[in-house]
Amino acid sequence: MEQEFSSVLLENAVSALSRLPGVGRKTALRYALHLLRREPEDAITIGNSIINLRTGIKYCRICHNISEQDICPICSSPRRDSSTVCVVESVKDVMIIENTRQYYGLYHVLGGLISPVDGVGPDMLAIESLVQRVEHGGIQEIILATGTTVEADTTNFYLFRLLSKKVSELKISQIARGVSVGNELEYTDEATLARSLIARTPFEL
Amino acid sequence: MEQEFSSVLLENAVSALSRLPGVGRKTALRYALHLLRREPEDAITIGNSIINLRTGIKYCRICHNISEQDICPICSSPRRDSSTVCVVESVKDVMIIENTRQYYGLYHVLGGLISPVDGVGPDMLAIESLVQRVEHGGIQEIILATGTTVEADTTNFYLFRLLSKKVSELKISQIARGVSVGNELEYTDEATLARSLIARTPFEL
Repeated sequence: MEQEFSSVLLENAVSALSRLPGVGRKTALRYALHLLRREPEDAITIGNSIINLRTGIKYCRICHNISEQDICPICSSPRRDSSTVCVVESVKDVMIIENTRQYYGLYHVLGGLISPVDGVGPDMLAIESLVQRVEHGGIQEIILATGTTVEADTTNFYLFRLLSKKVSELKISQIARGVSVGNELEYTDEATLARSLIARTPFEL
Repeated sequence: MEQEFSSVLLENAVSALSRLPGVGRKTALRYALHLLRREPEDAITIGNSIINLRTGIKYCRICHNISEQDICPICSSPRRDSSTVCVVESVKDVMIIENTRQYYGLYHVLGGLISPVDGVGPDMLAIESLVQRVEHGGIQEIILATGTTVEADTTNFYLFRLLSKKVSELKISQIARGVSVGNELEYTDEATLARSLIARTPFEL
C-alpha cells in the first residue's frame, strides 16, 4: 500500500490513524474513506472525543484509576469494602475485574509492571503511593492481581517483600492460578496443571 | 462488554470510535486506552486530522476524485491520456487502479452503484456529469471498471445504453473478467471459469 494520495488531508489522516494499535495503512485508509462518506458531524464528534479524552482525563488521587473527579467513584463509595485493596497493572484491569461483579473492595493501579528488560523499575510505578495507603492504616488485605507473566511474578515478589516489611499483620494474597473454567485437562499446559494440583482446594457441595 | 465506565470522557471516546467500520466497543476501548498511554500530542494530531479530513476535503470538479484543488492532479496532468475515461464506483477504486501503474487515462468517480434494493437510482450518482464530459467531446473510450457484482452489472448496462445513445462513435469497454493471476483452476468458481473460456484471448509469446 505504498502510494501517494491525491490529497494531503487524506495522507495526514491515514498517517495519524495508523498510530492506533493494530491499525496499518490499509485499515487506516478504510477508516478515513468511511469518515468521508459519513456526515461531517460524525468526524467532528470522533475527532473531538479523542482530543477531549486525552487532554481532559483525570486520575484518581488515591488509586490512580481514571476518573472525572479528584477521587474516583470506587474510592469514594461508602458501599465498597475499604479494608481490601486489589493491586492491578492498568486501568483496563479495573474494568475487567469490575465486570466480574465479584469484587467489592478498592483498587490500586500500578501503571505498569516491573520489567528490567524494558527498563521499568519500581520507582516508575505507583508503588510509593501504595505503601502510603497501607501505612495510613485501615487496609487488612492486599490482593495481587497483576497477571501470570514473568513481569507480574517479579512485581508480586517485590510488593510482597516491601509491604510485609512495612505492616506486619497485613494479609497479602494473589489471585488463584489454575485450569480455566470450561477448559479440558487435555488442552491445559503443564505449568498451569502443576499449579492447580499444588493449590488444590477442598471439594465442597 | 456492557459496562459503565468510570469516566464520561472515556465513554464518549469509546462510543465515537465504535462508529469506525469493523470497530466494536472492545476495539474502541483498546484504541482509547492506547491513546491514554501515549503523549497528548498524539491524540490531538489524530483528532484534528480526522476533523480536517472531513471538513477540509474537496472533490475534483471534473472526475469527483478527492483533491486539494478544484481540479485534481490526474485531470490537470498533461501526461495523462484525456481521450480515455475509466468509470469507477469510489475514490478508493481510483487508488487501487493507480497502484497497478498500468493505466494512464482519466477517471470518473460515480460515488456509488445503481442498486434498486438499497434505493440508489441513477440520479443519485455522478452520471449526468459523465454524460456532459462525453458530450463535450475529446473522449474516445469509456472503460467501465465498476466491479463484478449485480449492482456493477446493472450500472454498466445502464451506462452503456445511455452513453452509446449520446455519442455514436464512443468505444465502451469493461475490465476483463477471468481467472485471477496465481489462482489454480481447482479453486476458481464456475461462473468465472465459464467467462474466462468465453472471453479467451489469443496466446502470444
